[in-house]
Amino acid sequence: MTSFETRVFRLSMAGPSDVSPLSQLFDAGQLEPAHVVAVIGKTEGNGGVNDFTRGYFTQSLMLLLARQLGITPDEAMLRVPCVLSGGTEGVLSPHMTIFARVPAAQRASAPALAIGIAFADPVPAEAVGRMAQLEVTARAVEVAIGEAGLGVDEVEFVQVKAPGLTSARIQEARERGADVVTADTNRAMALSRSAAALGAALTLGDVSRARLTDSAIGDDMTLFSSRVSVSSGIEITRTEIIAFGNSLRWSGPLRIAHRPMADALDIGAIHATLDELGIPSFPAVAEADRGRIKAVLVKGMPDPKGTIRGFRHTMLDDTDINAQRHIRAALGGVASAIMGDGRIFVSGGAEHQGPDGGGLLAVIAEAR
Amino acid sequence: MTSFETRVFRLSMAGPSDVSPLSQLFDAGQLEPAHVVAVIGKTEGNGGVNDFTRGYFTQSLMLLLARQLGITPDEAMLRVPCVLSGGTEGVLSPHMTIFARVPAAQRASAPALAIGIAFADPVPAEAVGRMAQLEVTARAVEVAIGEAGLGVDEVEFVQVKAPGLTSARIQEARERGADVVTADTNRAMALSRSAAALGAALTLGDVSRARLTDSAIGDDMTLFSSRVSVSSGIEITRTEIIAFGNSLRWSGPLRIAHRPMADALDIGAIHATLDELGIPSFPAVAEADRGRIKAVLVKGMPDPKGTIRGFRHTMLDDTDINAQRHIRAALGGVASAIMGDGRIFVSGGAEHQGPDGGGLLAVIAEAR
Amino acid sequence: MTSFETRVFRLSMAGPSDVSPLSQLFDAGQLEPAHVVAVIGKTEGNGGVNDFTRGYFTQSLMLLLARQLGITPDEAMLRVPCVLSGGTEGVLSPHMTIFARVPAAQRASAPALAIGIAFADPVPAEAVGRMAQLEVTARAVEVAIGEAGLGVDEVEFVQVKAPGLTSARIQEARERGADVVTADTNRAMALSRSAAALGAALTLGDVSRARLTDSAIGDDMTLFSSRVSVSSGIEITRTEIIAFGNSLRWSGPLRIAHRPMADALDIGAIHATLDELGIPSFPAVAEADRGRIKAVLVKGMPDPKGTIRGFRHTMLDDTDINAQRHIRAALGGVASAIMGDGRIFVSGGAEHQGPDGGGLLAVIAEAR
Amino acid sequence: MTSFETRVFRLSMAGPSDVSPLSQLFDAGQLEPAHVVAVIGKTEGNGGVNDFTRGYFTQSLMLLLARQLGITPDEAMLRVPCVLSGGTEGVLSPHMTIFARVPAAQRASAPALAIGIAFADPVPAEAVGRMAQLEVTARAVEVAIGEAGLGVDEVEFVQVKAPGLTSARIQEARERGADVVTADTNRAMALSRSAAALGAALTLGDVSRARLTDSAIGDDMTLFSSRVSVSSGIEITRTEIIAFGNSLRWSGPLRIAHRPMADALDIGAIHATLDELGIPSFPAVAEADRGRIKAVLVKGMPDPKGTIRGFRHTMLDDTDINAQRHIRAALGGVASAIMGDGRIFVSGGAEHQGPDGGGLLAVIAEAR
Repeated sequence: MTSFETRVFRLSMAGPSDVSPLSQLFDAGQLEPAHVVAVIGKTEGNGGVNDFTRGYFTQSLMLLLARQLGITPDEAMLRVPCVLSGGTEGVLSPHMTIFARVPAAQRASAPALAIGIAFADPVPAEAVGRMAQLEVTARAVEVAIGEAGLGVDEVEFVQVKAPGLTSARIQEARERGADVVTADTNRAMALSRSAAALGAALTLGDVSRARLTDSAIGDDMTLFSSRVSVSSGIEITRTEIIAFGNSLRWSGPLRIAHRPMADALDIGAIHATLDELGIPSFPAVAEADRGRIKAVLVKGMPDPKGTIRGFRHTMLDDTDINAQRHIRAALGGVASAIMGDGRIFVSGGAEHQGPDGGGLLAVIAEAR
Repeated sequence: MTSFETRVFRLSMAGPSDVSPLSQLFDAGQLEPAHVVAVIGKTEGNGGVNDFTRGYFTQSLMLLLARQLGITPDEAMLRVPCVLSGGTEGVLSPHMTIFARVPAAQRASAPALAIGIAFADPVPAEAVGRMAQLEVTARAVEVAIGEAGLGVDEVEFVQVKAPGLTSARIQEARERGADVVTADTNRAMALSRSAAALGAALTLGDVSRARLTDSAIGDDMTLFSSRVSVSSGIEITRTEIIAFGNSLRWSGPLRIAHRPMADALDIGAIHATLDELGIPSFPAVAEADRGRIKAVLVKGMPDPKGTIRGFRHTMLDDTDINAQRHIRAALGGVASAIMGDGRIFVSGGAEHQGPDGGGLLAVIAEAR
Repeated sequence: MTSFETRVFRLSMAGPSDVSPLSQLFDAGQLEPAHVVAVIGKTEGNGGVNDFTRGYFTQSLMLLLARQLGITPDEAMLRVPCVLSGGTEGVLSPHMTIFARVPAAQRASAPALAIGIAFADPVPAEAVGRMAQLEVTARAVEVAIGEAGLGVDEVEFVQVKAPGLTSARIQEARERGADVVTADTNRAMALSRSAAALGAALTLGDVSRARLTDSAIGDDMTLFSSRVSVSSGIEITRTEIIAFGNSLRWSGPLRIAHRPMADALDIGAIHATLDELGIPSFPAVAEADRGRIKAVLVKGMPDPKGTIRGFRHTMLDDTDINAQRHIRAALGGVASAIMGDGRIFVSGGAEHQGPDGGGLLAVIAEAR
Repeated sequence: MTSFETRVFRLSMAGPSDVSPLSQLFDAGQLEPAHVVAVIGKTEGNGGVNDFTRGYFTQSLMLLLARQLGITPDEAMLRVPCVLSGGTEGVLSPHMTIFARVPAAQRASAPALAIGIAFADPVPAEAVGRMAQLEVTARAVEVAIGEAGLGVDEVEFVQVKAPGLTSARIQEARERGADVVTADTNRAMALSRSAAALGAALTLGDVSRARLTDSAIGDDMTLFSSRVSVSSGIEITRTEIIAFGNSLRWSGPLRIAHRPMADALDIGAIHATLDELGIPSFPAVAEADRGRIKAVLVKGMPDPKGTIRGFRHTMLDDTDINAQRHIRAALGGVASAIMGDGRIFVSGGAEHQGPDGGGLLAVIAEAR
């Protein structure tokens, strides 16, 4: 029986529409377009409601994939989930990470990186941030895990992209007589992340169904999973799922490890994750080892208490800079410094994703 | 012969006008108002031209000192330099660090933290960013070093606060027929930092006088000192200097150490500085040691090349968030994570302060 | 029986702490410090949660008043309401408007500008945005109207300053076991404005008590008054009221007129208000008439439908610039152009203040 | 001999990639794709260096045109200039204005709207903001005017899109040993606008060649044309020109009129321009006349003196919001209020475009 190997390519981008590094991989024969199963990227917008760099990149990527695969861009979008987080604050560097599934000659002797994907059905504006969105997400996560051939316990990390609301979508719902969860579009992004995170957590067995209600979403932060990261954005209307784990049914040198982060200063979690993968990291990853790291995925949040380890932060009271931009810059600073590389996926709303006030991280690397 | 000891109090602030923690130190008899020689603080404004938190704090502080010392607020301002950097992006926490000089019973057996201060003469708007400002700064740094009783080689760190320009000051100069170095007020802040940094570097012997010209200021980044940090702001018109070093002529358990930072990811410099002071720091400073750290002063800049270690950053192309805010958040993230404390003084314009594209840091702590 | 005259001084400010123009009025004998009854100002902060220009100006003003009146700054704050709106976006110009009540030799033959003030009792964080805040505001407005000697029908305009919430205040309430209306500090500012506006509207008879509930606050925009303008800010904890009207019991050449604005493009309302005061305004107020205008107070909001006259606006979806800043800039543009003067008080959250999606304006001028 | 008529379609957009309204015009047979000669649009980005909405719209538009015309997107870009200004601050509404040239049965009896286009040769990064860019722009403007069949005196308005610089382009130039005019990318946008404006002004005879030098660009504001509007952006590397005038050689009911604006409060210029076109406008354009207006193009700037009519503005000292965003919001507020429509093209850098501190406007409408 054939096995599969997950290959990962982390590519720098010169701008939100710059898919030329991927095009070059195709042209050089290093990657078959048909093997691409998912894309996770960090674009240089504000990461908020009006961040159009996500849509711009998606349009550019799907044009390339469509041309290469002989399908339409719309068909490409239904095939390859593209999870983007806007905002390369501070030292962060815009990049895309391409995940490919290629046939492997033989199974690995150690558990290897597994990947599975799924798309949830679209939800109307009034479902966003509520149980309806949670349920469709939970089902889609189940599909993705199944597609990866993973058991729930083998899942290390689930990346979700969930839809946001715009004023136009809210108005459209209201004209239908439907009631949206909030008219504040930034708040809607947070509630969408919350519902999706709890949906994934439900499937992973990290939260109990009995405690899940509309009012718990975005509110009861004792409910969380440290294996789920959700980004939201207005450029999609259906939820996209990418599930990762390590499995003996997969091949190749890559492995994924994850850790919860207790708070935004939890530098120990970063070092520990690298240690699990056999990568020395004090004071930073050595130049020779940097190439072994294929993806770093970080989730965090401005601590809602307004303090970190007892010291007041000002992220939540800032009317000039959105709190998510603040936290991405800070977490990006520490993760990039250790990795020696600014191409870190840092996403800034960690509701129900890792411990309250903290977050989580996952690293994909050539393990030793 | 009496010796002196430098005492340092790092106090959290609930807002830019919150001087109550200092007032409580006075009331509790833990600090004599007359012993206060300098204040360095981090307020929660934008750190830019229109950051009025610096002025608001200064007014609040000087009202308190004046009341305690039986002098006027204007007299207090002429006595105690107050160097503020606005911007507590990310995990940074607003705080003030109070430096006091108290008589000591006996000299220490090891070199101890020394401090000296000075004020430069006010300069007109047209001097900002030019040799005229550089020269007055150089002389004032000399005075501050002398006041600390330090030799030039014993100086570890010089903190400078330099004046900025507003549209009003520029217009005033133009009406006098004077020509300012730039009409861009953000650029004026950078050039003021540049001139002041080179002035200090000249006195410290870190640059050669022969290479200093108007056009080198803000331009020739091969000229720098790794012992100077400059903040600029529109709330002052004369330059303020605080010089630090370690000396056998001073007493007490505190010592200061500094390092250049090669770039914004130079986490090794932070660990090395702590190591020099005898503070273990992997993966982070242990809770028991955190109290030994009295001040962390970091300078950095968005690398003007537009890349860090070959990876593109987006700080300089961002029209929404000033580049200084980006870099402060990133550097604050890594320094705070190691220290376990967000009360880090991070200042974001490192022209001629440390290597180009990098910066520097200094730590004051109970050494062992 | 003596009568009173309201005198109004509109003074430009060089910065948030610049009270020198008022000091000069005092020194020149043009204004008795004891006659000052209220201040309304526009400072150059962001107008949001972390706008410290309001507090900085208040501190500076109260220091001046205290010195002039021989009282403490705290006593001055309990005597003179100081309603500030941060944010001088676009062509708006920072200024303070000083309202003084001076004895008048004789009554005017026509109704003249009347003014009355009041302070509401402080409310805890959990009252903000709820009926409890509404009720204390309603009572305070009644006091202010009574102090002005006005009947409810004579009231033309009520200016309110209402408290906001910070993360620290929210946390403090939670630690007491109290539940705040929202943990989003920008949202709290909006709900505080809402509760205060409905409180004033209740006293003015513009809304019916039967329809007022916690859930109507900030939600049911069919409830509004076109005679109330509320600013909120974290620098106060008790609500401040300034009531204006025209009355035969008052003297002097000034009069106030107001109009609702149907939407943010309602330029006709501005021209009509000026017309009521006998000031020709097409295409703009003539230079000779500009000095007759003593205060222009505008309230508006980004239309929550997301469109204005059917055309989409982007204010509510902007993660970079707060929607209030957008609308202040736009309304300030049109009002300033007609007046030929950027010293317009434009405040950006018009919940329950004028028609939904619109707002209101009031002008104080020498009428003819 | 055949004549031509200029048709103008102003289309609302639901987002930067929303070209569906144009697609519908094509599908409905109301517009031939081959007749489209130019597009001017207002997208909802920040209007600064990192505004990718301009590129996103351009990509989307060119995909549509290419599909309709049976050419490639790259060929479409070489055929149809697409001048975009980012930033729909305040009440401004995202829209695109499509200009089409269609054969007309007979010449008009009155001068009718004429249009001509041209593309300048690409310039390297080091030419931006200097005489080299000025010269190529001047030549391209000459071509566009000639293509419209206009005499220089018949030209009412020239719209220019000029290239900007990114950190990457600056670095690329430096690596070639070339010296760019500035490393500040926001400043580069201003200097690019300046050089292009003076180039157009030279061709129009509004400035004298003798006074044009590198150092005059962006500096000597006594040099200007009131018939030129320039936007700059990083999404193009060659300058695009659209020239407008009124001519008896053209047909149709449309006409263009323009006026300088003395300052940002010059509301009289707006009313006067509408009056010239026979559109009553006090207090605002009546609903019945709104449809006659096809395009409103406004240029303005934050007055570099820091004051408007003697009153201080704060646009140039704001580190949080770019000054161009401020002025667009203010000018958009007044123009939209008069027009009763937020679909105004307001562009915010008016260097050498209209009087210093002011700007200009042009209106295209069915004249009477």
